[in-house]
Amino acid sequence: MSEKRTEISQLGEFGLIDRISKTVDIKNASTIKGIGDDAAVIDMGEKYLLVSTDQLIEGIHFDLSYMPVKHLGYKSVIVSVSDIAAMNGIPRQVTVNIAISNRFSVEAIDAFYEGVHAACKNYKVDLVGGDTTASPSGLFISITILGVVDKKKIAYRSGAGDKDIICVTGDLGGAYMGLQILEREKQVFLTNPEMQPKLEGFDYIVQRQLKPEARTDIIYELQDTGLVPTSMIDISDGLASDLMHICKQSGLGARIFEDKIPIDQLTYETAIKFKINPVTCALNGGEEYELLFTIKQKNLKKVEMHPDIHMIGYMDKKEKKPVMVTKQDQIIRLKAQGWDHFTNK
Amino acid sequence: MSEKRTEISQLGEFGLIDRISKTVDIKNASTIKGIGDDAAVIDMGEKYLLVSTDQLIEGIHFDLSYMPVKHLGYKSVIVSVSDIAAMNGIPRQVTVNIAISNRFSVEAIDAFYEGVHAACKNYKVDLVGGDTTASPSGLFISITILGVVDKKKIAYRSGAGDKDIICVTGDLGGAYMGLQILEREKQVFLTNPEMQPKLEGFDYIVQRQLKPEARTDIIYELQDTGLVPTSMIDISDGLASDLMHICKQSGLGARIFEDKIPIDQLTYETAIKFKINPVTCALNGGEEYELLFTIKQKNLKKVEMHPDIHMIGYMDKKEKKPVMVTKQDQIIRLKAQGWDHFTNK
Repeated sequence: MSEKRTEISQLGEFGLIDRISKTVDIKNASTIKGIGDDAAVIDMGEKYLLVSTDQLIEGIHFDLSYMPVKHLGYKSVIVSVSDIAAMNGIPRQVTVNIAISNRFSVEAIDAFYEGVHAACKNYKVDLVGGDTTASPSGLFISITILGVVDKKKIAYRSGAGDKDIICVTGDLGGAYMGLQILEREKQVFLTNPEMQPKLEGFDYIVQRQLKPEARTDIIYELQDTGLVPTSMIDISDGLASDLMHICKQSGLGARIFEDKIPIDQLTYETAIKFKINPVTCALNGGEEYELLFTIKQKNLKKVEMHPDIHMIGYMDKKEKKPVMVTKQDQIIRLKAQGWDHFTNK
Repeated sequence: MSEKRTEISQLGEFGLIDRISKTVDIKNASTIKGIGDDAAVIDMGEKYLLVSTDQLIEGIHFDLSYMPVKHLGYKSVIVSVSDIAAMNGIPRQVTVNIAISNRFSVEAIDAFYEGVHAACKNYKVDLVGGDTTASPSGLFISITILGVVDKKKIAYRSGAGDKDIICVTGDLGGAYMGLQILEREKQVFLTNPEMQPKLEGFDYIVQRQLKPEARTDIIYELQDTGLVPTSMIDISDGLASDLMHICKQSGLGARIFEDKIPIDQLTYETAIKFKINPVTCALNGGEEYELLFTIKQKNLKKVEMHPDIHMIGYMDKKEKKPVMVTKQDQIIRLKAQGWDHFTNK
């Protein structure tokens, strides 16, 4: 090996992924899409097979001091289900790998799989495999999910068209504010272990962090109306970062409106209490597992009455860059501030 | 959670997998086979899709003091390719997840992916995805592979018939003896870092440990002759343990003959020097990635002249249990002594 040493933090997570992607050479005709979307796409004849994989690592992605192991099992599956939904697909099978240190008991593993099974049941996914092994320290989870999608219904990040309407499901920023509450109570507990955590009144946002759901309900509803999004992604890094993925891959700019961004009242009020701008939470919070997608203007009628789909702006020419129009009519450039575990430590 | 605490070591790796498997509920009609074979089997219409997943964990499965990172990348893919071969399938796509601590440089990651790409090229597999994240300590690798197999050609562990011939490819025990050599040289180095490792003359067995190959060549050859094994497994835990998987799942016993077990001369001589019984290495060594399979007697002619396929015995009635006939005509009961990372530490 060369003497040169470059730190991973110099590249960051996206830089490292770009570097790896560039060396990939695709040889099989059945590989339609490799690295670069929410899931890889494989031609299986009648339909496309979707494949996506994620890791959840103790001390990086979760903290067992406030994350119950059962919830962790549930969330592990949801994170992957959301990637299949983001391709407009239906999840079918999942494999779960865990590496566990001897700190964990069999009862803890049972609780983890109770969560996995509950998510599998809710989302009609089969647990078909997995590798279980020892870890020198900590809990490492790696999930791979398979799904299917009709060839004509697949939604890539790259398909958005100029002036397509940008839609987002649910509300944003809640998972981030839930995390702030949990971190605050953890600090209180560490200072005084006699104190009980005060989570009452924060149920909704704490739940957004500890037990998120994937939006396969939206996928089924879109299919019922015959609407195929021109592009789609799930909001795992934050609205700004994920919208910029769509912009980059579709070769377009975007204009969204601050007053259209859906923020739950509890998220809003909690953010204010924490002296955080609620819109910043919504733009950069991440871990939402809501869907961000674009539709042609002629299809507006198919979604505008939906109580949980919000139209927040439109795609624009590339020169316009991704921007947000504030409530004061200022135009500010969006920045990607997702979660970079290599540099934000 | 209950107050009860059961240590994972009380169950062991197989016990834990059994416990998890029992709670699984399959809901999708496309799921043909879940946990319990080398790969899960999914009906994709014309063909079966095969899915298998593995973990390689620093300090448990590999030691970077003698495992070059590039070899590790290569081996990570091979381990998974072997699982697809063991179903009589052809590997197609792979996803690679890594969690890396800041001990590793970008150059080390590049070397790892050089190995991944080399294996992908040799086995015509596409790298289609993966998750790259930080780890609090150590290197964690998780691989998922997809393959395909004609529905009529799939080989499960459960299909062996009474008096079917038991075949094994290559030679056994080498990877285990290679590990002994590497461990010996590591101890020498730890005692005196001025010493250079003495690996000359041990090339073959060291290579069996550091850069194993999967036997897709055998799968293509079997397809050319039109021979479909009645059962198949890859030798990752050791001949004894893996033969017992076939026996258990096929509901049969087995009789193998000590003098038929293929052992390379270097493996044999090195084992003798280390005062280890060479046959014990072959029976329990593991990490071989050779194929163990059964064929109907009428198909013997299709393999008996093959230089790298060895007929080592036959399947027997269930009452006969899995046994080995020694060179002295003694009959000894086979025991599963695979690698249990939870209890062998």
